[in-house]
Amino acid sequence: MKAGSLTVVGLGPGNPDQMSPEAAAAVTAAEDFFGYFPYIDRLNLRPDQRRHASDNREELARARAALEMAAGGGKVCVVSGGDPGVFAMAAAVCEAIDEGPALWREIDFSVVPGITAMLAVAAKAGAPLGHDFCAISLSNNLKPWDVIEKRLIAAATAGFVMAFYNPISKARPHQLGEAFDILRTHLPGSVPVIFGRAAGRPDEVIRIVPLAEATGDMADMATCVIVGTAETRVIERENQRPIVYSPRYFRGTGA
Amino acid sequence: MKAGSLTVVGLGPGNPDQMSPEAAAAVTAAEDFFGYFPYIDRLNLRPDQRRHASDNREELARARAALEMAAGGGKVCVVSGGDPGVFAMAAAVCEAIDEGPALWREIDFSVVPGITAMLAVAAKAGAPLGHDFCAISLSNNLKPWDVIEKRLIAAATAGFVMAFYNPISKARPHQLGEAFDILRTHLPGSVPVIFGRAAGRPDEVIRIVPLAEATGDMADMATCVIVGTAETRVIERENQRPIVYSPRYFRGTGA
Repeated sequence: MKAGSLTVVGLGPGNPDQMSPEAAAAVTAAEDFFGYFPYIDRLNLRPDQRRHASDNREELARARAALEMAAGGGKVCVVSGGDPGVFAMAAAVCEAIDEGPALWREIDFSVVPGITAMLAVAAKAGAPLGHDFCAISLSNNLKPWDVIEKRLIAAATAGFVMAFYNPISKARPHQLGEAFDILRTHLPGSVPVIFGRAAGRPDEVIRIVPLAEATGDMADMATCVIVGTAETRVIERENQRPIVYSPRYFRGTGA
Repeated sequence: MKAGSLTVVGLGPGNPDQMSPEAAAAVTAAEDFFGYFPYIDRLNLRPDQRRHASDNREELARARAALEMAAGGGKVCVVSGGDPGVFAMAAAVCEAIDEGPALWREIDFSVVPGITAMLAVAAKAGAPLGHDFCAISLSNNLKPWDVIEKRLIAAATAGFVMAFYNPISKARPHQLGEAFDILRTHLPGSVPVIFGRAAGRPDEVIRIVPLAEATGDMADMATCVIVGTAETRVIERENQRPIVYSPRYFRGTGA
């Protein structure tokens, strides 16, 4: 039997106007949908399209179920918020293919990119990712905390802007506060920190505070946190939110 | 007189199906368009919409001209490839506002995010950005080479996947080759390197080679280069391009 297809689709950060036409077309073409239930709920599926929604923490099991169905000839779509390649479903599906039966390598596998959270949050703040930057997941479910700590120090001392994904959860309430404590020993207290939640959606919250005042309880699991560098600047404006940007040129301020 | 508006719009990596509906709506709403001419040429502008195309190296002058027009009451759009906040026009506009007259801070300023090149290239390869990663511009027009070198070493030794923007140009033919030489002293030669050009367009080229064999002449100025880590894996397949992915979990392989 010929294997079917599996497409991992990025729906963007939540505002339907930020989902690409390519992603919309991939959704129209698929028959079976796997994903975290709030992402599946965003889609206007037809009655003939089947939903296989699951909890957020079951990524590998979900990937395997989707691959199993694709290997049987199905037209399968795995849905992801933001971009599927950034702390989302694409890597989980690849892991499952790597460890799975040979047949899974015959599946017509593709990934449709999307706008990832840090880009949507950065756009609302100005251009905080305007020079070299990095993206770090603060979840220590999949890597030890000392690796995260090492990466935070490397990024801060080398002058990368940082975007934090998975900054905090009920099971991991202390990571973000600890990360700020570590960064305060390597960066000036004036460095701007942006907390972005639901960027581009009606319930959007964008908050800008200096690193010296940043605390873990300013974020929840749906927040993307961006930490500037000593080069990052804030432009104050009357009656409008300040603009935060990281200049393209290197001045050599601070560190 | 009341100031007008200026929106910096990300058109995505080149495939029109990867441009968001939000970006399309921003283009429809604007009257004057500033940008690098190939980006302006991508738009289907109406006869009443005005083009102010310019060369790629005139970013700050272009930003000032756009702000000047917006300050005079215009509905101005600055167009950018990919995402405007990632090595593109958003930071240049912010720099101009920061250094410009007070009136420019009254402009209704916004940024519309887009899919940036590294996400489009990563999607074509699998999930190479599947764990912590960074984005580095290899252009030393705006920062000294020793800063770039320091960031390359920091990223390699801390285990970040790297995406290189502006890897090479006629004026800077040696940077990418030097970057690979530096990385070879810190990473195993087997680490996969992805060269992605025109991802998602008819002339797309995706090439995957081990770091040991990567050379500067494998890229041109329109290429986005992704360098994995010791954790990054390649899944070989029959009759299909290999899949490259960086696992979400940290194994502690290599460095």
